[in-house]
Amino acid sequence: MHITDVILKKRSGEKLSREEIDFFIKGYVSGDIPDYQASALLMAIWFKRMDSRETTDLTLSMVASGDTIDLSGIEGIKVDKHSTGGVADTTTLIAGPLVAACGGRVAKMSGRGLGHTGGTLDKLESIPGLSIEQSMESFQNIVNKHGLSVIGQTANLVPADKKLYALRDVTVTVDNMSLIAASVMSKKIASGADAIVLDVKTGSGAFMKKTEDAFELAGIMVEIGKLAGRNTVALVTDMNQPLGNAVGNALEVREAIEILKGGHAGDLKDAALALSAWMLRLSNLAGTEAEAMKMLNSVIENGAALKSFAGMIEAQGGNPAVTDDVSLLPSAGKIIEVKADKAGWVSEMDNTEIGIAAMLLGAGRQTKADVIDPAVGLWMKKRLGDAVSLGDVLAEFYVNDEKNLKESIDRFKAAVKIGSEKPEDLPLIYKVIE
Amino acid sequence: MHITDVILKKRSGEKLSREEIDFFIKGYVSGDIPDYQASALLMAIWFKRMDSRETTDLTLSMVASGDTIDLSGIEGIKVDKHSTGGVADTTTLIAGPLVAACGGRVAKMSGRGLGHTGGTLDKLESIPGLSIEQSMESFQNIVNKHGLSVIGQTANLVPADKKLYALRDVTVTVDNMSLIAASVMSKKIASGADAIVLDVKTGSGAFMKKTEDAFELAGIMVEIGKLAGRNTVALVTDMNQPLGNAVGNALEVREAIEILKGGHAGDLKDAALALSAWMLRLSNLAGTEAEAMKMLNSVIENGAALKSFAGMIEAQGGNPAVTDDVSLLPSAGKIIEVKADKAGWVSEMDNTEIGIAAMLLGAGRQTKADVIDPAVGLWMKKRLGDAVSLGDVLAEFYVNDEKNLKESIDRFKAAVKIGSEKPEDLPLIYKVIE
Repeated sequence: MHITDVILKKRSGEKLSREEIDFFIKGYVSGDIPDYQASALLMAIWFKRMDSRETTDLTLSMVASGDTIDLSGIEGIKVDKHSTGGVADTTTLIAGPLVAACGGRVAKMSGRGLGHTGGTLDKLESIPGLSIEQSMESFQNIVNKHGLSVIGQTANLVPADKKLYALRDVTVTVDNMSLIAASVMSKKIASGADAIVLDVKTGSGAFMKKTEDAFELAGIMVEIGKLAGRNTVALVTDMNQPLGNAVGNALEVREAIEILKGGHAGDLKDAALALSAWMLRLSNLAGTEAEAMKMLNSVIENGAALKSFAGMIEAQGGNPAVTDDVSLLPSAGKIIEVKADKAGWVSEMDNTEIGIAAMLLGAGRQTKADVIDPAVGLWMKKRLGDAVSLGDVLAEFYVNDEKNLKESIDRFKAAVKIGSEKPEDLPLIYKVIE
Repeated sequence: MHITDVILKKRSGEKLSREEIDFFIKGYVSGDIPDYQASALLMAIWFKRMDSRETTDLTLSMVASGDTIDLSGIEGIKVDKHSTGGVADTTTLIAGPLVAACGGRVAKMSGRGLGHTGGTLDKLESIPGLSIEQSMESFQNIVNKHGLSVIGQTANLVPADKKLYALRDVTVTVDNMSLIAASVMSKKIASGADAIVLDVKTGSGAFMKKTEDAFELAGIMVEIGKLAGRNTVALVTDMNQPLGNAVGNALEVREAIEILKGGHAGDLKDAALALSAWMLRLSNLAGTEAEAMKMLNSVIENGAALKSFAGMIEAQGGNPAVTDDVSLLPSAGKIIEVKADKAGWVSEMDNTEIGIAAMLLGAGRQTKADVIDPAVGLWMKKRLGDAVSLGDVLAEFYVNDEKNLKESIDRFKAAVKIGSEKPEDLPLIYKVIE
């Protein structure tokens, strides 16, 4: 087989066979197929696309390029969740403890955040003492005992994705449904979960700006999951504004704890509950949405969810007392109120710019080498459609280093548009794809 | 400027600016832009194409990537010809002496043949003693004295083309009009001729199978030439069968000499005359086709054309007596007649397979390292539409090494289809694009 024939076939719009896709992935990972031929094929795929059979074959070839995690040491159905990425989205730290408290098994391996703001691992590391580095044995023991563990990825999972993603990033071939779906699903499948709940974001702050594109991506990922023998559901959810109020690592942990305690109603809580309900249903712990919701509300009310979180924190070396007293989390030296310059309604939010505003305070990384300050970030006080009076507080800025403070505030204020009319309400959940 | 922005722009189908194209070529030649980004851009160009302004800018950026030849030491208008490549196409060795004998100035730098059969340089090197390596001074002196010199390319002409062509070859991005046109025209422009006559082949044995594609490519190349200040004309000519009768280096020289002597009427002669007539007109030596034809026939009849060829051969160290006595050219040990197995009409010829049949005898190179045997090849006795009786000689095979003889004969016979009906006559010249 020659890679040029494979490129020619895809360039002509034909479908690639399983053998051709596997030949490409094996050859690319081994180095037999050089970057320049891989990028020509990726660009041809961008133009001519792949169907779901090809995408599934691609995903499974990528899975086979590296290790797969054996979670057989954990009793019961292992359920994972994955979000395609958003700002102020700390649903994992809420859904994980909720599902665990209901008897679910959440064994989650997470990567570092690729965006402007910290990822789940960065948020967890803001908890004093907590380590996201655990052996596979310890990881499985913690899940067996507390129903939940979130750790960093150490195994050689899907090296094909690492290599392909780096190439796509510099050859303008990131934004293809099949390549995105294969990248996400190969990692989920290699991570060993039995069931997967996907949170596919849509809207101005998401990769998929158009709802129909998000539906399509979600549909492809669900199909891949099922074809790979994993019970998979996708929720397409709104990302036209930050999901929660907090943008910043310890601040997001604080927000998660407040929700687990029963407070802080809103989109973040509703999204976490919806995802959790599906995690319970795929774990065969609840038969219906209503049944799942009843269980979830009960573990909030009786404190079991918070206890699961505390259990995991303690098992991973952290101070579980943070769940009782959030002031034990790192706190910033100064809180600055950023106020509205005009009256009206919050009509638009630019998530990327809000993320950058938080990054400029130190809450995220501009380059891989940057060190995150866990204490800093924003706590937003207004959401899309909220009425705003002149001088209303739009957000509290939690600040240590004031070097980039002015730029951060300017960009934040430019990112929060105040219009003269109340905008239409947007749904939180657009569609569930089973 | 970032190359990813350039890739994105072309991927979206937008036109690239002169600056963007120049940034790409400069960066690619310097190594700042790696192969994998260049191949992604080439594939995007393949899908979204370039218009003639972009193609001209690409050509001129490629010219600027290396040396350009200064032919100011040659008096008069320097005229070049270029063929997009065919089998048994030795028009250069006929048109060159014809035009020189009429007062034209043909200073031609040629590359080695890329196909299965030898190129013009290989053909010339079959003449005992002739060297295609000449200094620029000697080259210009020979043209001033004899009106004609054909030498190998030594200067660092269009390094961008060398690098891009090698990349296109392995990334399935060769067959794009703009990339082909820029590759050909950058070399012609860098070679310093004032006027250029292009022979764009079309038909089953040509790169451009469809006549309309050949018209389009010819139109683009003529436009580039004119925009670059070179008087350019393209003839779109037939390549549904080998142009002449001989396929093999010394055999083709023999055929050229026979035509220069006034014999051997047929397509090769007609094509060479048509190209020569345009070369004279672009050199301001003839005002009309009829006038040019009169001059050309006269230099055949009075022996001046043959004398020009002999002059060039002698000046480049070769034995000019070959023009009087073709038996002084290398000759093969054995001539084998290959005969028809059935009667009918020659209805189809597969040029590639005929070229491979000659290559298998040693007339061409399978790999760059192969050494050509100048004496061997085929002399075809039938052309498309000719009636064939059982046992008629289809071709004489000139053989030294019989190792691949059987395969050569089998492939040749399979390549020459004999049908039960006389096929339609095809034109030799489809169109002239001025």
